[in-house]
Amino acid sequence: MTITVYGHSASSYTIIVFYVLKELGLSYEYYQTTSEEIKSPEYLATKHSFGKIPSLNDDGFQIYETRAIARYLIKKYQGAKTSNVLIPSDVQKAALVEQFISVGTSYYTESLIKLLAQVIGMKKQGNEPDLKIANEAREELVKTLDVYEKLLEGKDYLAGEFSLADLLHIPLTFYAIKAGEGDLWNKRPNVLRWWKNIGERECWKNIVTEYKLDDVV
Amino acid sequence: MTITVYGHSASSYTIIVFYVLKELGLSYEYYQTTSEEIKSPEYLATKHSFGKIPSLNDDGFQIYETRAIARYLIKKYQGAKTSNVLIPSDVQKAALVEQFISVGTSYYTESLIKLLAQVIGMKKQGNEPDLKIANEAREELVKTLDVYEKLLEGKDYLAGEFSLADLLHIPLTFYAIKAGEGDLWNKRPNVLRWWKNIGERECWKNIVTEYKLDDVV
Repeated sequence: MTITVYGHSASSYTIIVFYVLKELGLSYEYYQTTSEEIKSPEYLATKHSFGKIPSLNDDGFQIYETRAIARYLIKKYQGAKTSNVLIPSDVQKAALVEQFISVGTSYYTESLIKLLAQVIGMKKQGNEPDLKIANEAREELVKTLDVYEKLLEGKDYLAGEFSLADLLHIPLTFYAIKAGEGDLWNKRPNVLRWWKNIGERECWKNIVTEYKLDDVV
Repeated sequence: MTITVYGHSASSYTIIVFYVLKELGLSYEYYQTTSEEIKSPEYLATKHSFGKIPSLNDDGFQIYETRAIARYLIKKYQGAKTSNVLIPSDVQKAALVEQFISVGTSYYTESLIKLLAQVIGMKKQGNEPDLKIANEAREELVKTLDVYEKLLEGKDYLAGEFSLADLLHIPLTFYAIKAGEGDLWNKRPNVLRWWKNIGERECWKNIVTEYKLDDVV
């Protein structure tokens, strides 16, 4: 059995796939793509029809899109090598995990990407961040995190137990805090407790070390 | 067993939940929400923490976010009342369905919402559409549909068989064609064949009639 991840460790989506693999205890090969390569006819035809990363090959079976890859790996391998549960088998518990995956995508990740494009992306390109866009994104995040603060009352994780829903929040939150935006999380006790629960997982620390994520920001 | 959908038939997301319920052969009650009500403390506390629609209650179990609701209903009820399969049990087939759900969200729906906000939304509010934004959205859709044209070569549906991935594309595509944007689909033979396969499903026609969707545009 060989699992190969096509992607780049500077991509938070690729990092999510690595991290899911670690939680499931699966070893993998990492094929580092270039920005030219992923637009090549060969890559488009065999790895990702839209020329994006990551893409995964599991013993000949090819699959792309981060969340689809994550769900595939979980459905196929959860419980085989570790006891970590990312999507529970119980129908109602799984439904709540899916609810919070969608919440993350709809109300959290989108605003966070907008903020990071300014406070990290623009800087890296040697440009000044657009403060208006950055502040708009911060305001959206304030609204979302105020709801998270209520949702996390008396809970350690979004759906009760640690799950794929929490995991999908980790890389971008890690970058945002590194980039000096930590107050958004620190000022809300439940959100801060949640972030500590997920950001200090052993598997995540290993990812940070292995892919030198401290240097990314 | 009582399933109640909280939402509004003018929302394509609510329509998706109705449509999934129909494909699974499940009866349900429809509680039509108002835009004030969904921001009320009661609704926020018990139906949807972010004040959105739809939300679903299944015999006391409350769940929100369209895709999470769809996956929940499929996992719990698929095969019970009809033989329609929206997510196959085979791990690889299910993975491809998930891949195309994500493709739809990332490359199709987003641009289509942007277009419809101009060609339907602005008109309804009595405003002129912003032609620059509408054209940008059309250009994005052209790129996406060119890839779909290749993906659908020799296939009737995105993942081979009809699935939740196709279903999620239906309402917005229906509205776009009603709004006079049909050429985007008509000019591509494989895309057109796919649209006929999914847009002419008996269940979808019933939804159009029951919720008078012909009048929405």
